Amino acid sequence: MSGSSTVSETYAARAVALDAADGLAGYRELFALPEGVVYLDGNSLGALPRAVPGRVQDVMAREWGELLIRSWDESGWWTAPERIGDRLAPLVGAAPGQVVVGDSTSVNVFKALVAAVRLVDDEARDEILVDATTFPTDGYIARSAARMTGRTLRPVRPAEVPGALGPRTAAVLLNHVDYRTGRLHDLPGLTAAVHEAGALAVWDLCHSAGALPVGLDTHGVDLAVGCTYKYLNGGPGSPAYLYVAARHQERFDSPLPGWTGHANPFGMAPDYAPADGAVRGRVGTPDILSMLALEAALGVWDGVGVDSVRAKSLALTDFFLECVRDYLPEGRVEVVTPLAHTERGSQISLRCADAGEVMKALIERGVLGDFRHPDVLRFGFTPLYVGFGDVERSARVLAEVLQRS
Amino acid sequence: MSGSSTVSETYAARAVALDAADGLAGYRELFALPEGVVYLDGNSLGALPRAVPGRVQDVMAREWGELLIRSWDESGWWTAPERIGDRLAPLVGAAPGQVVVGDSTSVNVFKALVAAVRLVDDEARDEILVDATTFPTDGYIARSAARMTGRTLRPVRPAEVPGALGPRTAAVLLNHVDYRTGRLHDLPGLTAAVHEAGALAVWDLCHSAGALPVGLDTHGVDLAVGCTYKYLNGGPGSPAYLYVAARHQERFDSPLPGWTGHANPFGMAPDYAPADGAVRGRVGTPDILSMLALEAALGVWDGVGVDSVRAKSLALTDFFLECVRDYLPEGRVEVVTPLAHTERGSQISLRCADAGEVMKALIERGVLGDFRHPDVLRFGFTPLYVGFGDVERSARVLAEVLQRS
Repeated sequence: MSGSSTVSETYAARAVALDAADGLAGYRELFALPEGVVYLDGNSLGALPRAVPGRVQDVMAREWGELLIRSWDESGWWTAPERIGDRLAPLVGAAPGQVVVGDSTSVNVFKALVAAVRLVDDEARDEILVDATTFPTDGYIARSAARMTGRTLRPVRPAEVPGALGPRTAAVLLNHVDYRTGRLHDLPGLTAAVHEAGALAVWDLCHSAGALPVGLDTHGVDLAVGCTYKYLNGGPGSPAYLYVAARHQERFDSPLPGWTGHANPFGMAPDYAPADGAVRGRVGTPDILSMLALEAALGVWDGVGVDSVRAKSLALTDFFLECVRDYLPEGRVEVVTPLAHTERGSQISLRCADAGEVMKALIERGVLGDFRHPDVLRFGFTPLYVGFGDVERSARVLAEVLQRS
Repeated sequence: MSGSSTVSETYAARAVALDAADGLAGYRELFALPEGVVYLDGNSLGALPRAVPGRVQDVMAREWGELLIRSWDESGWWTAPERIGDRLAPLVGAAPGQVVVGDSTSVNVFKALVAAVRLVDDEARDEILVDATTFPTDGYIARSAARMTGRTLRPVRPAEVPGALGPRTAAVLLNHVDYRTGRLHDLPGLTAAVHEAGALAVWDLCHSAGALPVGLDTHGVDLAVGCTYKYLNGGPGSPAYLYVAARHQERFDSPLPGWTGHANPFGMAPDYAPADGAVRGRVGTPDILSMLALEAALGVWDGVGVDSVRAKSLALTDFFLECVRDYLPEGRVEVVTPLAHTERGSQISLRCADAGEVMKALIERGVLGDFRHPDVLRFGFTPLYVGFGDVERSARVLAEVLQRS
């Protein structure tokens, strides 16, 4: 066994030193985490920020219960989608006025892809490319968007995108970080390649926003979507968001032109006239409880730079990889996530044949990661509430489980 | 002035007697309403059921905060859309397995209309008819559904629907109760006429569900949608629902085939295979806070029959019309809502030139209704928490306001 007590003592001591030097360590206090648990599934459901329950209680008891309908104006409910969009925007590198919160990621993928095809507005560009390794809903929705705009869907691996681009390409839908492997794709390079080919780039940020710099404006991304319940800690199924680059807003033509995206929603006009800005990406009445829970959750980012989060994330995953290498029985797992920093998200995925059983045993021992069919153990590292001691413990417990199974 | 003290004393005494005889009077205790307010805007935002805050607190602190990701299984989060759909189904006259909760009404209108065109599957049927007087979002979304399925949108008044139906009609989108006038449309008769013409009927139940019997199954409705934040008291912007009649489910082909409507969502297969039943109407990850708030809100319906709600609703609106007739300065307002019970929803709309100012004055005096541009005062009567004393008071205060203005 390579996870000898001497080795683990050394790593435990290193973890103590790393935690002591961690400038983000204090942020853990902003979250309510159960005692005795190492939570490495924040890339599936972020932990509960302590500020959320009190705020939601106030929304229910006072804003809904007492002010009732008046809260649409007086409590700022009506403008929540764009206000919270602006709050979230710096985390994805967007200037104000380009992000609107609401609906699910799937619904926003549909809006973004259909709108992209309409922005390109060229019948000869009859293909939509989609990341073949992406989270499946993106592919399902992209197929529907292609079908409903008379285009063909062409699934390709991200590495094959540059070769697949051409005069037939209308739009490309890519994931910034692969949900299964944790691979970080080259957003600047791929976006540039897509533009070079005369097409538009739509990025899904579900597994990157809140964990690493995205730089939507800097890299000239056209449209983007993402969820808020992973690294943004908005709560289970909290509203997603849509980014529409300022230069595309005037011609952004939504397939879901609901009344709250209308230029004058209370005019109740029979014809649709889109609002200016990202607001035209709104559809129906905003879901206030979930949306204001998200707004409260975003408070943990006050004063936090995404660069410092990224630095800690890489330190955490580097440390986990070291512990894994030295603790685990040799050959028992295969590291699926790329080792190069430029290709790594904020998770480490390990392949092992009995991953389902191993994850069950880990969870019983208080280490919560998740299992992705058929053979992947997935560990997400959320820099705001995961420390180096957690990393050491999780690798140690994983070694124990693997030695017993 | 016709609202003399003698008249108002008589009506006040009648209100006391009516409240005493009201079998639903006790349900008011299930709601948290502010002191001193008559709330006649439940047709815009239903009042807060007392059970909601405690339940949502538990969802946040325990299910999210402590159980974390495990709650998707252990707390029943994953199956919430169909479970809450089944809970809601009896209120709209649907047998289990046909209603799924999620997304906004607008998004569900899109699913339902596109699916209806695909169910009809006949190129010659190239028209979608839509209620020209409907809440605008239905018309906006219907236009998009028509555009994306290669059909033409034809707005017609509900009374003109029978004459407009024909071999070119694919689907018809109608509102059960008009949001502005409170007119109740003939769902059984219009559905039969639509079927006679070989088309499908899609109904929007936003202003009827929870206020009167709908009878979706009995009347053979094909598809329906509705919100849950009016008479169903789910909270601001709470999730909407979609009804897919059992006979159409196998061929229901959603334009938003998200991963949670997949037959095997965690198989992460690259190709979409729809789940059986109304579940295929699901799209993205369900919004749990809002959805479970709605579930708790639906608890107020335990033991309540929709027929008794309808009987009280008609008694309330009849009584309001009597008070209005005898209290208000003659000719000052025009009753817009039909007087016939068969054509009346659960609201009374009054037209008066200075409606905006009048509603402001009413709200200052604790009577909360709403104003619909340009000249409509709208009063919604929610039988579970509005009593006859409230009705008398609101008409009396309205008379005072009109006499001063």
